Amino acid sequence: MYSVSSVGHPPEKITSLQNPRVKHLVKLRDRRPRDEAGVFMVEGYRQIRRALEKDATLQELYFCPDWFLGENENALINQAEEAGALLIELSKDAFAKVAYRERPDGLLALAPQWKRSLDDLTLAEVPFLLVVEAIEKPGNLGTILRGADAAGCDGVIICDPVTDVFNPNVVRASTGVLFSVPLVVSESEQVHAWLKTKGIRTVATTPAAEKLYTDTDLCGPMAIIMGSEQYGLSDFWLNNADQPVRIPMAGQADSLNVAMATIITLFEAVRQRAS
Amino acid sequence: MYSVSSVGHPPEKITSLQNPRVKHLVKLRDRRPRDEAGVFMVEGYRQIRRALEKDATLQELYFCPDWFLGENENALINQAEEAGALLIELSKDAFAKVAYRERPDGLLALAPQWKRSLDDLTLAEVPFLLVVEAIEKPGNLGTILRGADAAGCDGVIICDPVTDVFNPNVVRASTGVLFSVPLVVSESEQVHAWLKTKGIRTVATTPAAEKLYTDTDLCGPMAIIMGSEQYGLSDFWLNNADQPVRIPMAGQADSLNVAMATIITLFEAVRQRAS
Repeated sequence: MYSVSSVGHPPEKITSLQNPRVKHLVKLRDRRPRDEAGVFMVEGYRQIRRALEKDATLQELYFCPDWFLGENENALINQAEEAGALLIELSKDAFAKVAYRERPDGLLALAPQWKRSLDDLTLAEVPFLLVVEAIEKPGNLGTILRGADAAGCDGVIICDPVTDVFNPNVVRASTGVLFSVPLVVSESEQVHAWLKTKGIRTVATTPAAEKLYTDTDLCGPMAIIMGSEQYGLSDFWLNNADQPVRIPMAGQADSLNVAMATIITLFEAVRQRAS
Repeated sequence: MYSVSSVGHPPEKITSLQNPRVKHLVKLRDRRPRDEAGVFMVEGYRQIRRALEKDATLQELYFCPDWFLGENENALINQAEEAGALLIELSKDAFAKVAYRERPDGLLALAPQWKRSLDDLTLAEVPFLLVVEAIEKPGNLGTILRGADAAGCDGVIICDPVTDVFNPNVVRASTGVLFSVPLVVSESEQVHAWLKTKGIRTVATTPAAEKLYTDTDLCGPMAIIMGSEQYGLSDFWLNNADQPVRIPMAGQADSLNVAMATIITLFEAVRQRAS
């Protein structure tokens, strides 16, 4: 059972499905109420732990021991409370109602949304960025963020977004990397101009390119540009990227989705930049 | 509306949710009835098109124009019938019941399961194989199959399987690559012995390795060995692989999942083998 931490008071417990907090959480699955409230949901042990590790603010932490899967939940709850989160216990039914996952693990936090501009990005001495256009599927965006984290990108810039980065499925698919990879949402022309002023070369992947990504210099200040799932690279980037490159394909033309193509290109850059 | 092809008779139309065919299809979501019947479900336009392109047998094709999303469904249905599939029309409700997807597209086929042994694999002059252990998530297995197809592997060998390759989610996530990439299910010791007799070197990825995958020779007759999501590489392959390698990680230790790590390693092999 849950034990109250040394710093806290016994948390409120909600059992009614009509409780205003419960109703509010359900609404936050949609973008508009999420943006109006300026918050987003972080569901699950792994995601909440990442948020705390990265010193992200958690305003409220909802928990329900009936859904716990492991043994470390209480420690995490205490850690969240020490970091300033308001603890609220939910009954099993109430938690099932607010949970986004089919199989919840009894932990759900509310965090404030943030907004970074291009100039908020901290660039390495030799900048290494990822720019993605209009990604639609939250799962792909989450996977791309994980890839950028693993590759050590300075940040990810999303141009002309279709999917809200605070969508619960992005938070989930990113396994909390959302809290560690600097993320900027902007527009293609603005991003292109900014990269120019910073002296950052743009390498864009498209099946139409002649040059292989492996035959291209991916060292130096560089941004990799990836198109959207459905339309690929936009005309803007096709016309304005410094170097178009392609990934060789042995099988079906559509075997690589955008997340896979991104990861392949990022890790070729990692290889070249390390040597 | 659907028009009957030149070779066919007007297809049967099922409206009752109690129809034995409808009940049978629902059961096929589970492995045991699937294995007993020796068939599996191929749902969706893209997947069925792939199956037909690869001359896979489709025994039955269920369709429901009320769910169609595009304009090419009728051509595909005619093609399936010409290839020998029995056509069966379903009412909107009946199709919704048998469909595995939340948003069906009105096309679902039944195909016979197959079983390949290691010796059924056709190896290239310089063999290039992927071996994966006990993958659990159908989505990961599907992504891995797509990666192996894109990288031009001779085949994928699944050791000690946890997930049935004929699981509807594998078929879906593989976007039909299941029909093109030769797939063998076997056991690790048997696979290891077979690779030895064929003179195929084994390169296994594990975070415990000292050598980077990019500093390792991935040319020549070679199999890349990948562990499972939860446990990584098994002791058997840790002890028996010819060369352990690791992928460098800049961010969180768990940022790369097994599908991403597989694709990174496969495409480094493609790069080396091309040059």
